[in-house]
Amino acid sequence: MESESDTGTGYVQSLARGLLVIRAFNEANPEMTLSEVARATDLSRAAARRFLHTLVHLGYVWTDGRVFALTPRVLELGFSYLSSVSLPEIAQPHLEQLVSEVHESASVSVLDGTDVVYVARVPTSRIMAVSINIGTRFPAYATSMGRVMLADLPEDKLHAHLDQIDLAPLGPHTITTRAELIEELARIREQGWALVDQELEAGLRSIAAPIRDRYGRVVAAANISSHASRTTLEAAHEDLLPPLLDTTRRIAADLAVSPQSRAVVR
Amino acid sequence: MESESDTGTGYVQSLARGLLVIRAFNEANPEMTLSEVARATDLSRAAARRFLHTLVHLGYVWTDGRVFALTPRVLELGFSYLSSVSLPEIAQPHLEQLVSEVHESASVSVLDGTDVVYVARVPTSRIMAVSINIGTRFPAYATSMGRVMLADLPEDKLHAHLDQIDLAPLGPHTITTRAELIEELARIREQGWALVDQELEAGLRSIAAPIRDRYGRVVAAANISSHASRTTLEAAHEDLLPPLLDTTRRIAADLAVSPQSRAVVR
Repeated sequence: MESESDTGTGYVQSLARGLLVIRAFNEANPEMTLSEVARATDLSRAAARRFLHTLVHLGYVWTDGRVFALTPRVLELGFSYLSSVSLPEIAQPHLEQLVSEVHESASVSVLDGTDVVYVARVPTSRIMAVSINIGTRFPAYATSMGRVMLADLPEDKLHAHLDQIDLAPLGPHTITTRAELIEELARIREQGWALVDQELEAGLRSIAAPIRDRYGRVVAAANISSHASRTTLEAAHEDLLPPLLDTTRRIAADLAVSPQSRAVVR
Repeated sequence: MESESDTGTGYVQSLARGLLVIRAFNEANPEMTLSEVARATDLSRAAARRFLHTLVHLGYVWTDGRVFALTPRVLELGFSYLSSVSLPEIAQPHLEQLVSEVHESASVSVLDGTDVVYVARVPTSRIMAVSINIGTRFPAYATSMGRVMLADLPEDKLHAHLDQIDLAPLGPHTITTRAELIEELARIREQGWALVDQELEAGLRSIAAPIRDRYGRVVAAANISSHASRTTLEAAHEDLLPPLLDTTRRIAADLAVSPQSRAVVR
């Protein structure tokens, strides 16, 4: 009767393990045999077989009898999140308008743990070494969007955040000391926007502004990213910032009248 | 020991139920109480509570103690699929180049069951009533991308596909008889592209071409969509088709040399 509860505490271990099996597939392991899945997830072969066959039955995994791979149905799980929050849908037309004005890629992200997660994006040309999709994550401290969201945290929460992370030099100019980062966040809080110059990746410049809910809390951020060879720091400030601030104001205005606006808040 | 297997057959029911809980959240129900989740999933309150608390523990669900909502971590599940197939990453820069030429939205999708599922997209302006994201699904028979993929199916698989679907009139010009659709698919197979004029939605025109793997099999499709008021049928054929065919050829050439190209095949 209570068979789905694997322990007395009500924690459903088999759900956790099944999600682990889905997440074991990635760029390095797009197709795996049963043994490879068992090894990647630290499950017994018998357990891995049960999870894989359940996922095949549900349509999330495909197999030719030897190897297993995820199907596009897995995207529906991520889509459950996207359709349950109003921000991505509200932001998208505003990002499209912004990109048609500035001819650079624009995105919206939210904070999840110590990462920013992209929830809306209108790309122009590829300037990042890695491709960015909805769901892509980067360490918040080294991104312009992350910094405008960190700048809004109460002091205790900010320190708890900083305690969890290692300020690694991801790009040629990354801020790597806690004191400098806290000083930069105070400047961002004051001015209402953040400019990051080649801190996440060489050649990448990005300017971000906060998106506030009806209570004035920062719930997300929008940015414009450009290549350093194409946009000077002055041009980012003079040409990109005003349309970006217009965009975040318009998104916030739409969000304020959306019945779902609470759903973006963690 | 075998506690995660709820039945003797090896089917892990609690994994299926947990995924059902994730998918219960959507646009209409972005936040739910325990009772609402139990009702939406047909689970007992006790079972729904265990699944929700497990998902909270794993970081996929957030709660304020009263209501529950998905977190952006759910996107990582979909991201497992995107990063495990090479097609989205390979297609993205080619779509970006195509959009910079034609100034209309372009996408790549794959067939999953009777639907097309978007796996890469570069939007320009909003022309659809619904927003399209990675993971969005539409019935294959009424879309240009779906038709180029259906046109490549062997006859028995095509008939099995058609047996599963209802040819509903989704737009003002939707083909709704099996005989007409089969005739149209033969024309598409012959000419190597598909044009759909307001069959999925009023005002929407879309032209698609197949993306083939190294063995010549159609594994995906790319399209350009435009508003009927902006693009005549002649313009779609004369102005959009040549750059689209260039794009699908370039994507196919990159896919052929990708070590992961098998992973796009179902």
